[in-house]
Amino acid sequence: MKKIESVKNPLVKRIKRLQKRKQREKEGLFVIEGFHLVEEALRHDVEVQAIIAEDNKNIPSNHSGAGISLVTEQVMKEMSSTETPQGILAVCSLPRQEKPLSIKERGSYLFIDGVQDPGNLGTMIRTADAVGTSAVILGEGTVDPYNDKVIRATQGSLFHLPVIKGDIEKWIEACQTKNIPVFGTSLNEGTTHTAIEAQNGFALIVGNEGAGVQEKWLEQTDQNIYVPIYGNAESLNVSVAAGILLYHLKLFH
Amino acid sequence: MKKIESVKNPLVKRIKRLQKRKQREKEGLFVIEGFHLVEEALRHDVEVQAIIAEDNKNIPSNHSGAGISLVTEQVMKEMSSTETPQGILAVCSLPRQEKPLSIKERGSYLFIDGVQDPGNLGTMIRTADAVGTSAVILGEGTVDPYNDKVIRATQGSLFHLPVIKGDIEKWIEACQTKNIPVFGTSLNEGTTHTAIEAQNGFALIVGNEGAGVQEKWLEQTDQNIYVPIYGNAESLNVSVAAGILLYHLKLFH
Repeated sequence: MKKIESVKNPLVKRIKRLQKRKQREKEGLFVIEGFHLVEEALRHDVEVQAIIAEDNKNIPSNHSGAGISLVTEQVMKEMSSTETPQGILAVCSLPRQEKPLSIKERGSYLFIDGVQDPGNLGTMIRTADAVGTSAVILGEGTVDPYNDKVIRATQGSLFHLPVIKGDIEKWIEACQTKNIPVFGTSLNEGTTHTAIEAQNGFALIVGNEGAGVQEKWLEQTDQNIYVPIYGNAESLNVSVAAGILLYHLKLFH
Repeated sequence: MKKIESVKNPLVKRIKRLQKRKQREKEGLFVIEGFHLVEEALRHDVEVQAIIAEDNKNIPSNHSGAGISLVTEQVMKEMSSTETPQGILAVCSLPRQEKPLSIKERGSYLFIDGVQDPGNLGTMIRTADAVGTSAVILGEGTVDPYNDKVIRATQGSLFHLPVIKGDIEKWIEACQTKNIPVFGTSLNEGTTHTAIEAQNGFALIVGNEGAGVQEKWLEQTDQNIYVPIYGNAESLNVSVAAGILLYHLKLFH
């Protein structure tokens, strides 16, 4: 197979354009980088349309169906969104449509209200996966989960559980209809988290790094909770707080 | 006061050079950016040598003793390590010497073994502050806490508690001499963290993002623990795991 050697090859431009959310949504495509992520995508039913690699050796064995292009190191560097590219990337299809709202008995849910930092969102998706959360719901104003930094921070967890853009109001109602309690988080309103017992099912809402969870959601929750601060920090990082609360609330059978 | 208007002013170069660890250590100086951090540094006995701002209005009122220089927006942009500078930065003295090793009765300690990501280190220092940890010890191979990204992620917590470069082996011994149990963290060796009760005093060791805590330390601990993974994630982000464990282990009186 002939290698693409020119950084002016149209493929290079096309892939770079997918670094922008608008273009991803227009084309219904997103890009992942690195052997581990490509392997995870292939393993978890992501539609991988094309794999671009510096070398055949670096391609996961389960790649059937995906077109393969080989490129030089320089071309890879030009396409990559990282400073030290890992020699492989893949173009994947975005999920075709929003999944319908459906709440499981004893399900556990993480609702994310306007988190802006890609590292924070990715880390929370990874933690939600680790704790066995049923789904992560991304409210309006939350950073796009198909942003390259988010995907990197999920370490593949983006492909392990449903991560759905949705209307937080509808999801709160849907949980409450099924008697699944909804917990809001606040800097200091409500109850210390340790006063709440582990739950058979629950939804947890975490909010924007600066503004927290919007007041309108905090008014609709069953209870608002916070992780107490004992030292001089003003608050915890949102992905750390989410980790503490998810592991605290989840009842492990 | 006359504003510095030229990006060729020697001050600009001098401040930019402090983005490098070697230069910081050579000059005994580090740089912080943003109103909140400068205010925190002034409030917590950091020796602030110089404040550089776009405007007198943006300078914290408690700045006595620090020299002030005004600069244009363009000069600030040139000096800043962020894409959207906040209009103020300060040059501070590094702590003059390593603080002596001293363990408090009922103290709680976070030992960090080779964490590389500045965001992770900064977030852990912030969490250690929030939970009321006595000190954070940075073992060999850990990213410099005076790196601008670390400082930003600490949100000021770097100035709230001792953050000390040290020899993890000596700190393990010092804790054990005072009957403070030392817990190592491992992906799956040892005990689930929930099997351990909250402690009057403890030390927790967390490790490098890829390699974890070095085996030689795991052999010297009183017990090794892990946060169980229930989903498909291979591991937790180290700063999330540290948050869960610190809040779990700390006994709140």
